[in-house]
Amino acid sequence: MTTIDLPAVPAAPASGDAGCCGPAGSPVGADEAGDLARTFKALADPARVQLLSIVATADGGEACVCDLTEPVGLAQPTVSHHLKILVDAGLLSREQRGRWAYYSLVPAALAQMADSLVGLADADGARR
Amino acid sequence: MTTIDLPAVPAAPASGDAGCCGPAGSPVGADEAGDLARTFKALADPARVQLLSIVATADGGEACVCDLTEPVGLAQPTVSHHLKILVDAGLLSREQRGRWAYYSLVPAALAQMADSLVGLADADGARR
Repeated sequence: MTTIDLPAVPAAPASGDAGCCGPAGSPVGADEAGDLARTFKALADPARVQLLSIVATADGGEACVCDLTEPVGLAQPTVSHHLKILVDAGLLSREQRGRWAYYSLVPAALAQMADSLVGLADADGARR
Repeated sequence: MTTIDLPAVPAAPASGDAGCCGPAGSPVGADEAGDLARTFKALADPARVQLLSIVATADGGEACVCDLTEPVGLAQPTVSHHLKILVDAGLLSREQRGRWAYYSLVPAALAQMADSLVGLADADGARR
């Protein structure tokens, strides 16, 4: 890429491979970007960040939905809606036991998100 | 927390402290959750994930806006809009040089997001 002040012919990496996976250090393709964006979207709401955090720090590693409404100050249907989004994104798992649903964190999913961010930062460091 | 099948009095961490920061291992407060959610929202769009990735992997650690439109297949005003969101979130920095704006990654911001995710996963592991 040029760093001088000229409008250049686009010299960015191949856009035709957007759906595939390039070698290490290549930009993410469209499919991977879509997957990542969906997961980040699940955390793009303060109530969901708080819910995830409360579940992560709950004794025994799980929290009953009945314990989650008061800390976030929302009605149970709203909390259940947010929890469903976190479950659908693979960040929480849900187990129904009798009357209540219990939620626990999926640490591997968080680790994968963190790895993606660290990977981007590392790729940047290697190019400077 | 109870694990038996009874509707319990909420036993979750103090909700009155939502705006403050608890000791290590406590859930994030409302302010911190809001900050995190805003940053995650900046990455809740496939085009923005791709743009961040292209900038991160660009030679020299920076990319001209003129090089970013083709890889994501979007018009320059749309790309500039997405880039502004990434800059406002602190994930990219922007430098105007003559006709073109050049963007580079802010690795510390990505590292901070990754740390938040790892912190949640670690808190979970410590409670099981």
